[in-house]
Amino acid sequence: MRQIIMRNINEDLSGSLVELSEATTPQVVNPFDVRVKIAASGVCRTDLHIIGGLLPVGIPHVLGHENAGTVDEVGSMVTTVKKGDQVICFPFISNGLSTTERKGLDSNAPNRITPGINAPGGYAEFLLTNERAMIKVPETANLCELATLTDAGLAAYRACKRASKLLGVGDTAIIIGIGGLGHLAVQILRTISPAIIVAVDNKLEALAMASSFGISTTCLAQDLTETFRGQATVVLDFVGTNSTSAAALECLAFGGTYLVIGAEGSVTTTMLDLIENEKHIEGIYVGTYSELQEVTHLALSGRVRPHIQKYDLEDANQALHDLLNGKISGRAVLIP
Amino acid sequence: MRQIIMRNINEDLSGSLVELSEATTPQVVNPFDVRVKIAASGVCRTDLHIIGGLLPVGIPHVLGHENAGTVDEVGSMVTTVKKGDQVICFPFISNGLSTTERKGLDSNAPNRITPGINAPGGYAEFLLTNERAMIKVPETANLCELATLTDAGLAAYRACKRASKLLGVGDTAIIIGIGGLGHLAVQILRTISPAIIVAVDNKLEALAMASSFGISTTCLAQDLTETFRGQATVVLDFVGTNSTSAAALECLAFGGTYLVIGAEGSVTTTMLDLIENEKHIEGIYVGTYSELQEVTHLALSGRVRPHIQKYDLEDANQALHDLLNGKISGRAVLIP
Amino acid sequence: MRQIIMRNINEDLSGSLVELSEATTPQVVNPFDVRVKIAASGVCRTDLHIIGGLLPVGIPHVLGHENAGTVDEVGSMVTTVKKGDQVICFPFISNGLSTTERKGLDSNAPNRITPGINAPGGYAEFLLTNERAMIKVPETANLCELATLTDAGLAAYRACKRASKLLGVGDTAIIIGIGGLGHLAVQILRTISPAIIVAVDNKLEALAMASSFGISTTCLAQDLTETFRGQATVVLDFVGTNSTSAAALECLAFGGTYLVIGAEGSVTTTMLDLIENEKHIEGIYVGTYSELQEVTHLALSGRVRPHIQKYDLEDANQALHDLLNGKISGRAVLIP
Amino acid sequence: MRQIIMRNINEDLSGSLVELSEATTPQVVNPFDVRVKIAASGVCRTDLHIIGGLLPVGIPHVLGHENAGTVDEVGSMVTTVKKGDQVICFPFISNGLSTTERKGLDSNAPNRITPGINAPGGYAEFLLTNERAMIKVPETANLCELATLTDAGLAAYRACKRASKLLGVGDTAIIIGIGGLGHLAVQILRTISPAIIVAVDNKLEALAMASSFGISTTCLAQDLTETFRGQATVVLDFVGTNSTSAAALECLAFGGTYLVIGAEGSVTTTMLDLIENEKHIEGIYVGTYSELQEVTHLALSGRVRPHIQKYDLEDANQALHDLLNGKISGRAVLIP
Repeated sequence: MRQIIMRNINEDLSGSLVELSEATTPQVVNPFDVRVKIAASGVCRTDLHIIGGLLPVGIPHVLGHENAGTVDEVGSMVTTVKKGDQVICFPFISNGLSTTERKGLDSNAPNRITPGINAPGGYAEFLLTNERAMIKVPETANLCELATLTDAGLAAYRACKRASKLLGVGDTAIIIGIGGLGHLAVQILRTISPAIIVAVDNKLEALAMASSFGISTTCLAQDLTETFRGQATVVLDFVGTNSTSAAALECLAFGGTYLVIGAEGSVTTTMLDLIENEKHIEGIYVGTYSELQEVTHLALSGRVRPHIQKYDLEDANQALHDLLNGKISGRAVLIP
Repeated sequence: MRQIIMRNINEDLSGSLVELSEATTPQVVNPFDVRVKIAASGVCRTDLHIIGGLLPVGIPHVLGHENAGTVDEVGSMVTTVKKGDQVICFPFISNGLSTTERKGLDSNAPNRITPGINAPGGYAEFLLTNERAMIKVPETANLCELATLTDAGLAAYRACKRASKLLGVGDTAIIIGIGGLGHLAVQILRTISPAIIVAVDNKLEALAMASSFGISTTCLAQDLTETFRGQATVVLDFVGTNSTSAAALECLAFGGTYLVIGAEGSVTTTMLDLIENEKHIEGIYVGTYSELQEVTHLALSGRVRPHIQKYDLEDANQALHDLLNGKISGRAVLIP
Repeated sequence: MRQIIMRNINEDLSGSLVELSEATTPQVVNPFDVRVKIAASGVCRTDLHIIGGLLPVGIPHVLGHENAGTVDEVGSMVTTVKKGDQVICFPFISNGLSTTERKGLDSNAPNRITPGINAPGGYAEFLLTNERAMIKVPETANLCELATLTDAGLAAYRACKRASKLLGVGDTAIIIGIGGLGHLAVQILRTISPAIIVAVDNKLEALAMASSFGISTTCLAQDLTETFRGQATVVLDFVGTNSTSAAALECLAFGGTYLVIGAEGSVTTTMLDLIENEKHIEGIYVGTYSELQEVTHLALSGRVRPHIQKYDLEDANQALHDLLNGKISGRAVLIP
Repeated sequence: MRQIIMRNINEDLSGSLVELSEATTPQVVNPFDVRVKIAASGVCRTDLHIIGGLLPVGIPHVLGHENAGTVDEVGSMVTTVKKGDQVICFPFISNGLSTTERKGLDSNAPNRITPGINAPGGYAEFLLTNERAMIKVPETANLCELATLTDAGLAAYRACKRASKLLGVGDTAIIIGIGGLGHLAVQILRTISPAIIVAVDNKLEALAMASSFGISTTCLAQDLTETFRGQATVVLDFVGTNSTSAAALECLAFGGTYLVIGAEGSVTTTMLDLIENEKHIEGIYVGTYSELQEVTHLALSGRVRPHIQKYDLEDANQALHDLLNGKISGRAVLIP
């Protein structure tokens, strides 16, 4: 099969980052294995972190942790999907036996395998995963769009679900970064919460996209602190730099919560500010299998629609460079 | 009446910090005013911050925000307490009309008055406060011990109550700092949560006091990170320095929460650590009137007992210096 | 002033139920009293219960517990509203000092006064209430519509807020009874929850009104059990008869909750059914001051709009008979 | 192997109910099967319901859904337990793939198998179950006591855990029925909640046992309503008759919750009472795998100790009759 291979770290992220190669199609070996014929694989900022060496992986490596496709072959004990089913892939492979999984927190299963991170991913024609990672979708579903739910949409949903528990009628939520995750978060949050939503970005086109989803307030990043100091019950930060963090914390009202999803920098604050305003800071890590079912329900019922830019699999370098250079509106996906 | 007056900022906290003086007894003027004859007033690290200039106040100033005593005179519309009642004083004076108070969060009432901070406090024979700040206690109650509940005990209780919502059977909670607040937190948390409690301090006597409350695990501050890395569901930090903060964050398990009560320094962490381990950081600010009722119930039913060191009112300088020099076990109180 | 007076119990609810009379305008006496010039007073099924003798009151009595109007005179210590302000009236008068109020639960204040129930109500030109019951609204607000929020809207909101905490994406909520409360509940729930909402009534016009609010599923009461057995995460019952109760319980999924707001009959179920399906049953009683602020926010921002039928104050008998005979669409209000 | 077989329904529960017989030892067939050599199997009121025909099962039947023992043989894919391990058995067998299980609610897995109910149970020398039902315990653990955790202890724990979320400092919890489940509930609740606990039974010996666990208040069933009307935040009903239900509802304070665990009768109440006092009624069904881990932790750490009466396996009839006749203190277990 064709696949895109990353042969070395490229700290500068310059020139050719990955290359097309031929590989043996992965084989179903274990009784719960599932081989998926890839329809689309999302291109994520994490892929740039891997190529740049910030997130260490074994070399050579096949990227692609956001995958959707068609079941191609199943192991001997698989009962819930069969060849030909359309599926999206929960990003983690595990056996369901750990204590954390027994409580519903599949995203923290010990020794889990994450294709595209610590196993070959979906920048390829076929992906090997397992039955517990399968979410079946209708034949009519748009797999290219749905692929982006399995990481971008999932993390955005987990953040918004957490936010919605904290937000009441009349409260304000600020969403920083209207990109791959943030453009989904705007759509999700307005569906699951009555809060006033403020979309923030440093690009006017991104703010225009946010407005197109039906929210009434947008704000350029440079004006955020001045406009919303002390007003937000929740800030969702999908950028995650030192400066977005500082602005986010300043915008929190008493008892407010800063949800960190983007991971580029650090958070620093005085204890006095944390205490006197009972500020909360929380990291959000991907999401659970049930949460992926839920955000998929939102997409299938038409309330959330991922904006995608399609690239042929062999144009992976182009997609990665476009992401690096801020040229992607929504999310890029590779089509084998 | 006699009172202790602070006439100037003393950045070095050296020599005489406050002095005894005579003053006019405060008068009941407004219909909800209550004058309390002070039985005891707690000596708090915040008093040192005020004297040292870290927390600005009007000069001259009467310290003392942790007060208990006997109702001496009431305003014309007061109905729930009467002269002679024994009371402890909720630290905030407000009118109960704000939205935040209507939701039960009295501790964040706008324009609230806090005797000892922005009004004359309880380092005196009499204190002027109001009806909404009154919590009546039985005649047999020990007012000297109970005084310490109104700030130290209240903040410790609010932190422990929050912790108890996060802690389940088999989980570990770490309490850093077994001083004025921490020695109450150990007693409170073991009463309201089944979690395993680890008491941490850099003094062996403080650990011995923690053990005397019936917990099984103590740890010297220097050994904390090495012994409990990644193991705690909650860390309650009553010290609040840069180094306790770093240690606390390292000790958190996936999804764990760092509760900040002490406020000496800053919190700094990478976003990646926050996200990959879904760590939470939360500031705790004093507590509500209902929470003060609850911790008082714990004390009156014998499950929490403040350890106090009594000083005569005129020995306020000695008490403040003893606190500064780490010579107080539990909490110091001034007796007029 | 003119007022409508109920001079006796009328078990059959036949003929003249109440009558117009002249009375002395109520006087502001206490420092927190507020006299409101009534703009509109809602007509509630509870009024019929009072007239019919199901809910005992002192005779003669002035009905009207759902009130809005203009502040006409204030007591000496009132600071948050002034003559001329437009207001809606929280239905309970209390002093804010009880433990339950300190926790935010004003609706359960001991010894509270409820105009229209245990004090003269708003079927009159003027109403005497107090400062803590005031919610100020803009001059442009429609007081006739907003009056209905203070009981119908408030109870509907409290029920929907509780429901929203139980409902997730993809879950089903059933609302039984699209009348005075239910028509507001449909609008509220679709604003604050992503759940699938099913509106149920035995009148097609009521279902048509529900559809007009943008929900996609309606069901005649007679078809409810057969269509939705075991499918609902929450059922909100605004009718509250023995038969709606039986149907509601049958429609619950495992872990589902039956919220009882209408109060005409009884609830009966086997323990085995409760246990094997972990069914929950909860009564909802009016709502808190903060909740009234929140539902008012929804109305002022255009997301909830009460449907009202206006009657002149002197036509109170007609309004009450129309309610009894099922001729009101939405809520009737009396205009002095 | 030896087993106890129930050959027919016996509505009167008179005479011989079950009999000893020889059977083929069950075989490990599927890759996740586990065969357990039974150390003890609890005798439950549900067993009497089955024999009496109230809970229909296939005939002939082997009772016993509360099991502990030693792993005897494992299927080819089992990795987390091995021959010789001491284990207690979660009562449900399922594959972990359903949506409800992915959320952590194993106790509601569709098509689950429950040995002793819809498959052969543990009144035998060997039991066939699966890997997901295994909870490993130390070699030193007392399997005869721990067996009772797997249903009695589990349901008691789930009820107490739910109660503890509703109970604060100073609140009152009433536990009705100090038998097989209730004697565990008293121990559990006092460990995980600071609430005041009232133990209720109609036998003085049961109340004496409750007192021996360190609670201060007991009450004869006949005095319950009169003594505690309107005072309880939670009532846990382990008896579950029409009369305990009526008493429980009368004892609830505003906002209180009636937790139904015993299932002998019905619950009936007027809607008016539910509403005016915001009463809640909730059924509790067994518990989850994680909850079984948690209550096992409580037992292994010495904070909960099941009181058991041992019977030889061949004395099953005697044990069942003793349970029927109220002669068991705590829980009866059969030892093969």
